[in-house]
Amino acid sequence: MFLGVDIGGTTIKLGVVDVSSGAVVAESSFPTPKTGSRDTATDIAEHARDIKSAFPEIDRIGVGVPGAMNRDRSLVRYPPNLVGWKEEPLERYLTESLPEFRRIEVDNDAKVAALAEASFGAGRELSHFLLVTLGTGVGGAIYSNEGPFKGIYRGASGGAGEFGHMSIDINGAPCQCGSRGCIEAYLGQQYLSERTRKKLQIDPSIHSILRDRLSDLTPKIIASAMHQGDEFATQVFEEAGMLLGCALANVANLLDMHVFILGGGVAEAGDVLFRAAQTSLRARVLANLRPVVEIRKAHFGNQAGIIGAAMLVRDPL
Amino acid sequence: MFLGVDIGGTTIKLGVVDVSSGAVVAESSFPTPKTGSRDTATDIAEHARDIKSAFPEIDRIGVGVPGAMNRDRSLVRYPPNLVGWKEEPLERYLTESLPEFRRIEVDNDAKVAALAEASFGAGRELSHFLLVTLGTGVGGAIYSNEGPFKGIYRGASGGAGEFGHMSIDINGAPCQCGSRGCIEAYLGQQYLSERTRKKLQIDPSIHSILRDRLSDLTPKIIASAMHQGDEFATQVFEEAGMLLGCALANVANLLDMHVFILGGGVAEAGDVLFRAAQTSLRARVLANLRPVVEIRKAHFGNQAGIIGAAMLVRDPL
Repeated sequence: MFLGVDIGGTTIKLGVVDVSSGAVVAESSFPTPKTGSRDTATDIAEHARDIKSAFPEIDRIGVGVPGAMNRDRSLVRYPPNLVGWKEEPLERYLTESLPEFRRIEVDNDAKVAALAEASFGAGRELSHFLLVTLGTGVGGAIYSNEGPFKGIYRGASGGAGEFGHMSIDINGAPCQCGSRGCIEAYLGQQYLSERTRKKLQIDPSIHSILRDRLSDLTPKIIASAMHQGDEFATQVFEEAGMLLGCALANVANLLDMHVFILGGGVAEAGDVLFRAAQTSLRARVLANLRPVVEIRKAHFGNQAGIIGAAMLVRDPL
Repeated sequence: MFLGVDIGGTTIKLGVVDVSSGAVVAESSFPTPKTGSRDTATDIAEHARDIKSAFPEIDRIGVGVPGAMNRDRSLVRYPPNLVGWKEEPLERYLTESLPEFRRIEVDNDAKVAALAEASFGAGRELSHFLLVTLGTGVGGAIYSNEGPFKGIYRGASGGAGEFGHMSIDINGAPCQCGSRGCIEAYLGQQYLSERTRKKLQIDPSIHSILRDRLSDLTPKIIASAMHQGDEFATQVFEEAGMLLGCALANVANLLDMHVFILGGGVAEAGDVLFRAAQTSLRARVLANLRPVVEIRKAHFGNQAGIIGAAMLVRDPL
């Protein structure tokens, strides 16, 4: 049993994970400090010590963070949703605070979630898959089994998997990354909400219960309107799925990738999004891929982070 | 020394390659038979036997083909430019015809060319690169060094590297693959020529010496007009480079890929194409990649096929 830690923008979760089954044996959580990575490490250390007093056999900790890592994963680089973080040696801070643990590793949260899916989830029997996280931003992780290599594909400097910045339209929607037409600029939470709001404002003939929620639109609210039968809300997710399928087709063609696992809040929109994505994916891929491409829902929701983080110290990536 | 064979749509080349240096010690060639894979194998066998009588120590043959392979590389699948080929067990035909050789392997031509560049060419010191072949079509091969794995990235069923069908515009130019906006639909030889012809026909105010060549436009002719100072021809390659850079940016972001090696006839357009591609690549990638992304010219031209094919039997991919 290892300790998995999932650092989020608002909450940090810790879980004791049985890495032979993926079961979470115990869990705790606390609010993410707004004062930087040192304080975060101190708080995690305190909780980890509490857990170790109850489970003294635990001597490894895996940590998932919402940011990019450098090549050897010693530094977390500019995580957009963690206040006061620049380039932070989180692994070192934790190792210094927790000498009683033999091994501590840190990795990007999407990569950690892909590890959970590969080990016990929707990617269990697969040699290759792309995990897509549809959350505040759109993230991803490439899982590959190439000859002697098996694990998360990292690329030249460790940052591979940035599916959110796959552009599907060079003249498309501006993305905060500086490019245009990135899939994140359509499906990222704020972008999706903002596009929906604008459509309602521009075209007063659209009937939708979302008109009452214009000031606080979120993908969750749009999805709930869809589930209440709102036609416009349904169209929002049909379009989102169609665009997502186009971006996935690019990955399918480039990497000969057959399976795409979707997780994160926006994936909760469910069938409408998945069906539209599958249809456009099929229509866009090379002929030989049409019968084999497939979109699956992530198996793990909230717990992907702690389970995958624990797997990080079982299987070195 | 091994024998490398490069099967093209019009010519088949054979070369005796010193795989310690990449030097081609002897070469021969003959026209590609128009009567299918069995006759091709028979003709190759005849030439290989001639070569073996001069170099009796040669006992391995590597072969590059312009088509996709199945996962274990036993079948060449529907090569578009080889007349009468469907799913062809070329390796078996060659092994049956040439029992005096101990080992024969077949692979896709772009993957073989990437192996030549990785071993002795523009990719020599790199851990990761994408080779792009700008020819009749646009092809590619991903070279990766991920932990214990080092070589051509193959994906779930062996077809990874199809960069030509990276779409940069979901509403863009129709591609013969059935999708839209594929980079091949802009830079493939026929597409590039056809787009150029149409522009000249639609806008009679364009001054260009290409007007005299409307019936037989090729990228080579357009490039030669550019080198004579034709402004419109220069714009054609500036646009091509700009579009190429956008497609490369998608690969850079997804795979954390820093270096792109361009080969094939269209790459001969030279500086104008390369500069435009580099500019749009830099403008489109994620901020952390901007200082490191780089486009290089392939080191090997015509001989990439035979050198890489010979490397195929030295280093199993």
